[in-house]
Amino acid sequence: MTIAPLIESISINKVFGGWHKQYSHHSKTVNADMRFAIYLPPQAINGRKVPVLYWLSGLTCSDENFMQKAGALRIAAELGIAIVSPDTSPRGEGVADNDSYDLGQGAGFYVNASQAPWSRHYQMYDYVVNELPVIIEAAFPVSNKRAISGHSMGGHGALTIGLLNPERYCSMSAFSPICNPINAPWGKKAFSAYLGKDRATWQQYDASELMGKARKFIPAKVDQGGADDFLKEQLKPETLEAAAKMNDYPLELTIHEGYDHSYYFISSFIEAHLRFHGEHLDR
Amino acid sequence: MTIAPLIESISINKVFGGWHKQYSHHSKTVNADMRFAIYLPPQAINGRKVPVLYWLSGLTCSDENFMQKAGALRIAAELGIAIVSPDTSPRGEGVADNDSYDLGQGAGFYVNASQAPWSRHYQMYDYVVNELPVIIEAAFPVSNKRAISGHSMGGHGALTIGLLNPERYCSMSAFSPICNPINAPWGKKAFSAYLGKDRATWQQYDASELMGKARKFIPAKVDQGGADDFLKEQLKPETLEAAAKMNDYPLELTIHEGYDHSYYFISSFIEAHLRFHGEHLDR
Repeated sequence: MTIAPLIESISINKVFGGWHKQYSHHSKTVNADMRFAIYLPPQAINGRKVPVLYWLSGLTCSDENFMQKAGALRIAAELGIAIVSPDTSPRGEGVADNDSYDLGQGAGFYVNASQAPWSRHYQMYDYVVNELPVIIEAAFPVSNKRAISGHSMGGHGALTIGLLNPERYCSMSAFSPICNPINAPWGKKAFSAYLGKDRATWQQYDASELMGKARKFIPAKVDQGGADDFLKEQLKPETLEAAAKMNDYPLELTIHEGYDHSYYFISSFIEAHLRFHGEHLDR
Repeated sequence: MTIAPLIESISINKVFGGWHKQYSHHSKTVNADMRFAIYLPPQAINGRKVPVLYWLSGLTCSDENFMQKAGALRIAAELGIAIVSPDTSPRGEGVADNDSYDLGQGAGFYVNASQAPWSRHYQMYDYVVNELPVIIEAAFPVSNKRAISGHSMGGHGALTIGLLNPERYCSMSAFSPICNPINAPWGKKAFSAYLGKDRATWQQYDASELMGKARKFIPAKVDQGGADDFLKEQLKPETLEAAAKMNDYPLELTIHEGYDHSYYFISSFIEAHLRFHGEHLDR
């Protein structure tokens, strides 16, 4: 028996023959209200159960950035793929926060926080992996075939979640991911706050560490701008590539000369990511 | 002799093999600093002079909305068309403003204001028609082939400017334009403020009035969402269509069922607009 989850509609827009919809709902996992957006392609409206690409956004973003700026919905409509874009953290009064842009609200880093005051709400790993797909698969005409992708902090989220759950995702990809957060300022700051001082715990959320040790593989695609201001200090794709090589992990990693960290970069290459996931979701 | 205009770079992003660039410059026409964005497709970087589509945005927008949300740059890169997106008004301290979203800064309505306090800066018609193209054609590798398009208030701007200057533009198009501002609340409010009480002056900036009287025609394409909240009271495409029929004006007007006033609508149909302009710019 499926009990329809209590999700509340915020907005709806027709786009490329399908529908972009925003919802809020109370999440038991993060113990707060969460917001997400879903794009349902025309095939879903015409009665077919479509696979789902989960998109995890970067620092300061909400469910809206990808849906509005990536230019992905045209291709999702063509391929018949739903896209789900959760918010990047719980928000609102009573949810712990920090003045900086890279910690607290808008910066959940897709981990399960163990440290006060964060642990009460910042359980974004469990929310994305376990709670959200149950809601999506109960409330919308989608199958249980899933792929995962994201940008920057969300690229870190997509890769770590894909690497830790190869049985749940057909494929994973990322734009400009934080590939080695345990050795990058953004990651060190967030992991210290959310996970405490034990670096062994941090390694459980580090894509390079996980890719070097993975035993079950899923197809992985990463694109990175060569003119990205965060490339050397924060993102470290070379560390991910080295881990993949060492472990024979099937990673396609490309550096695109001249492109930066923005959605202008994402929009230029999102079509290839959707077609990549489309191939693996079809199998 | 061409004197390079003094334009100051604000930002630059590589996108679809070309470049999105933002600039500010002092405008003699509006007597204030203005901002614009330009997309230069790969063909322009490779030494070809490309034609230019001018995009006029709607109320509250800046140069950024279209460039970030429309999904137009992919097709501009394919077709070799530059896109120029000016701001919707002068801005800043010393520029007259109003507390409402539909008058003053962000709401220039692409007219030449004759009334105080607006007349000192709000000369957006002359800025778009006369000053901006001179700057663009001096500073960038573009030809003098021009098309014009826009959304809502900017759709009104694109149609009126195209109708008043058929020798300057190869084609014009609009999404959800304010087709008959002299009979719509947005238009009445703005025209009263900027142009005063004389309705004969208002008619010079009304697309339906102008399309009904035009003697020289350029190809015109209008798309309108059928679920647009502003359709009946503010936009009135039926008035434009009636004027076109009366005057045999070559207008392609389509109502798209279910689509609203947002960039989700624009992104769904922008490709057809760029291909439309591409055909006429090529001749």
